[in-house]
Amino acid sequence: MMGPEIESLVAQVARLPGLGPRSARRIVLRLLSEREGRLLPLMGALAAAAQRVVVCSVCGGLDSVDPCSVCGDPAREPMICIVESVADQWALERASVYRGRYHVLGGLLSAIGGRGPEDLGVGRLLARLDGSVREVILALPATVDGQSTAHYLTERLAPFGVRITRLAQGVPVGGSIEILDEGTLAMAMSARRLAE
Amino acid sequence: MMGPEIESLVAQVARLPGLGPRSARRIVLRLLSEREGRLLPLMGALAAAAQRVVVCSVCGGLDSVDPCSVCGDPAREPMICIVESVADQWALERASVYRGRYHVLGGLLSAIGGRGPEDLGVGRLLARLDGSVREVILALPATVDGQSTAHYLTERLAPFGVRITRLAQGVPVGGSIEILDEGTLAMAMSARRLAE
Ligand SMILES: [Zn+2]
Ligand SMILES: [Zn+2]
Repeated sequence: MMGPEIESLVAQVARLPGLGPRSARRIVLRLLSEREGRLLPLMGALAAAAQRVVVCSVCGGLDSVDPCSVCGDPAREPMICIVESVADQWALERASVYRGRYHVLGGLLSAIGGRGPEDLGVGRLLARLDGSVREVILALPATVDGQSTAHYLTERLAPFGVRITRLAQGVPVGGSIEILDEGTLAMAMSARRLAE
Repeated sequence: MMGPEIESLVAQVARLPGLGPRSARRIVLRLLSEREGRLLPLMGALAAAAQRVVVCSVCGGLDSVDPCSVCGDPAREPMICIVESVADQWALERASVYRGRYHVLGGLLSAIGGRGPEDLGVGRLLARLDGSVREVILALPATVDGQSTAHYLTERLAPFGVRITRLAQGVPVGGSIEILDEGTLAMAMSARRLAE
């Protein structure tokens, strides 16, 4: 009834996180009713991102240059903040409470998910500890997987003699980093403590 | 920090109905992390829709042919169901309770919105009443604007001697057509009554 092009567009949009058939139909109708103002700009932005965005070979972040603009910024402090995901990195950057570099794990140790130490890519992290890095901050979620990942990384990092800290007060038990407000992130960052 | 391509993509996604900056960031990260499986198929679906979907010159619906597949289907009954929007048309089609054709107004009379009779494009509707149309169904929302639009259309259609009905029981007061479940739509369709 709506034509195969509309049907397949609704299907693609409905697969996006947080969306379903109803919201996808609403979005598709809006896009089709404002072709110049919405549909074409969205297509252009998607094409530009698809063509230019790459994963940073140093930190695992996303940018249109590799190394990313954070890794390549000489003004960043010689610290590495370890995060689970790019979403968590973005949340910390938005809060403007940290001026060092990052390391994106892309996942946590997970007994249930069958994700073991070999999946963390720790070698890529350890290769960055060239003696100039003064501190590694574990900004991992306060969940079972986050805690066990932090514990594992602390053990692996110990031989390097680098200062290892964790975000402290303010991260709610069971909460993720990404959804924290900026004030909470600022408090957690300033009150970080030595990992034991 | 995230690169201009990602920033402008997040901005475009955040403008879609029902989305905001947080959900847009989540969607963009998912798209970028599954380039082959999500980003490229979405781009393809958007391009196909942008290139092929047109507004039906007869009924105002959307399809990749003009007249649309509903207007062009000889098996459809000689009835016209008047709806506010394509979204409402799609809801009725999904419910499979009606096998006639449609007329999409694209909006209602609105004193507040400053939308008068001349904005309804009634001429395009009246041109369709060539004597073969047996019934016109007013499937408009049970709101003030929906009721006044139905009243106005009833007056304009009266001289044509066509049977004019409205959806009856089941449309909640203040409710829109699009969000109704299929059972309610079926009841409202089968219990439609003559418009007075
Ligand atoms: Zn980087
Ligand atoms: Zn049509």
